[in-house]
Amino acid sequence: MKEISIYREEFLTYLESKLTRKEPANLYDPMRYILKLGGKRLRPILVMMSADAFGTDSQKALDAALAVEIFHNFSLVHDDIMDDAPLRRGKKTVHEKWDINTGILSGDAMLINAYQLFESYEGDQFRKLAKLFTKTAIEVCEGQQYDIDFETREDVTLAEYLHMIKYKTAVLVGAALEMGAIVANANEVCTQQINEYGCLLGVAFQLQDDYLDAFGDAETFGKQIGGDIIENKKTFLYLKALEESSSVEARQLQHLYTIAPENPEQKIETVKQLFIDSGAASLAKAEIEKYTQKAFNVLEDMNISEAKKKPFKEFGELLMTRSV
Amino acid sequence: MKEISIYREEFLTYLESKLTRKEPANLYDPMRYILKLGGKRLRPILVMMSADAFGTDSQKALDAALAVEIFHNFSLVHDDIMDDAPLRRGKKTVHEKWDINTGILSGDAMLINAYQLFESYEGDQFRKLAKLFTKTAIEVCEGQQYDIDFETREDVTLAEYLHMIKYKTAVLVGAALEMGAIVANANEVCTQQINEYGCLLGVAFQLQDDYLDAFGDAETFGKQIGGDIIENKKTFLYLKALEESSSVEARQLQHLYTIAPENPEQKIETVKQLFIDSGAASLAKAEIEKYTQKAFNVLEDMNISEAKKKPFKEFGELLMTRSV
Repeated sequence: MKEISIYREEFLTYLESKLTRKEPANLYDPMRYILKLGGKRLRPILVMMSADAFGTDSQKALDAALAVEIFHNFSLVHDDIMDDAPLRRGKKTVHEKWDINTGILSGDAMLINAYQLFESYEGDQFRKLAKLFTKTAIEVCEGQQYDIDFETREDVTLAEYLHMIKYKTAVLVGAALEMGAIVANANEVCTQQINEYGCLLGVAFQLQDDYLDAFGDAETFGKQIGGDIIENKKTFLYLKALEESSSVEARQLQHLYTIAPENPEQKIETVKQLFIDSGAASLAKAEIEKYTQKAFNVLEDMNISEAKKKPFKEFGELLMTRSV
Repeated sequence: MKEISIYREEFLTYLESKLTRKEPANLYDPMRYILKLGGKRLRPILVMMSADAFGTDSQKALDAALAVEIFHNFSLVHDDIMDDAPLRRGKKTVHEKWDINTGILSGDAMLINAYQLFESYEGDQFRKLAKLFTKTAIEVCEGQQYDIDFETREDVTLAEYLHMIKYKTAVLVGAALEMGAIVANANEVCTQQINEYGCLLGVAFQLQDDYLDAFGDAETFGKQIGGDIIENKKTFLYLKALEESSSVEARQLQHLYTIAPENPEQKIETVKQLFIDSGAASLAKAEIEKYTQKAFNVLEDMNISEAKKKPFKEFGELLMTRSV
């Protein structure tokens, strides 16, 4: 198996070769722009790694990997419009650099372009890839819609929240791994299990992201600490804290999630203390651990050699040991 | 062969059966809303008619027909956002009834849903349908982008305009016919030819729409006469008139296409006179005739029985004899 950085290099070389200038420029330039903005390229790496682990040259997985990355970037372009976000990876978002109409139409073309990339695969592989992609893409849209709906709902349950992050974030991680397995002609039990592994790991990762948003190290987390608290985002920590708090503290927390003070430091500190005192912070860590363990159990149960499991396990450990 | 109204009824019954309520409501309600707004349903009818003509029960074409109709409606939802259009078929557009974000996300889900419908077809049919759909959908996006670009360009050529309307409007008509042929397992020559027929007819139809926008009968055209002139739309009539006019008249026309008078009656009359005097009006009629004839020639050349050609021919004649 190759190092992750090798997959990344191979992917970036392929991406570069595919990003030629095309007309109409106002449709294709924004695609090239967002795809060149960077990012960790985790999803395409997972497609390639999975193909490799299941016994096929990872080069054969490049088009599927690119499809996943283009879909991910499509969702970023449209989500950034919906969130009115000015910046993405420190650079202007597409609708800021061009305009909203360009963002909508380029995004549409990216979604279609992702499907087009599966045409490199023959017969049953094409069908399996396109079908998995469609199922996953619909779930991502549903997840995004639930996320939007939750902003204005006061009765979001923890189960609903977990369902939302599964759809919005985790299913694409699972699909990336399954696509690699499909390209390698792995059997159906394996493709399902590796998808499940990725999906559970994706939920664990998102829960960890929520946790680190409040309790991470500003130096290494890469985002502003307390960002979710400032935006009154109903994350696992908030919903669990409400569930576990006395009614007085619950009301205090709910009140804090209605205000947006100019200087949010005091609010962030108070909310974090409520997260700790209610036990929500510890319970979040336990939940992260639970999902991570569930993921590794699925991997354990797989009827493939330990050698094949190793890269998946290492990737999962790498992803989840980010403690800062 | 069935009457067009029979195909429409069959399609509407199927559409109704598919439009069940689904969660999240804010994602799926707008889909149901736009799909129930009405319209002539020409594209799905073409899919069904084509399947029938090529020897398969039109019921087998229902999912492909629905995919084409959903794609068409996806493009309406996103185009209406881009055009800031308040009304569609006399009712509020999706982004007016909900909001822009809902329009974007529901549209995305519709595009994905269209692909999903091809999953009813097995093996090679699935591949052919999805591939044709992708090619067509990309072209529709490119056509829409060119249309947007042309608004702010002063050097649009007639060739560019014809390319734009082919992509934005005509290719989907061709694809609808080809999809029916694919569902009926028609041979590749036939599927290509019937697509070409639809595409040429689509261009003729759009040119006729441009012509009737200026010279149609307000009673029967269904849209405001002179709408394109009011909006300074660079249609065939305008571009041809510029080409054919003396420099004085060309400058007058260009000037008229920079203004937006509150009462546009005088402007509309002057522009129409310039269209007539330059010969552009007659040349437009000749161009419509040329594309219609080209379409019928392709149909003539097809190696299928006269009986099979008949419904296609009748549909074309029906479409193009709309003189008011």
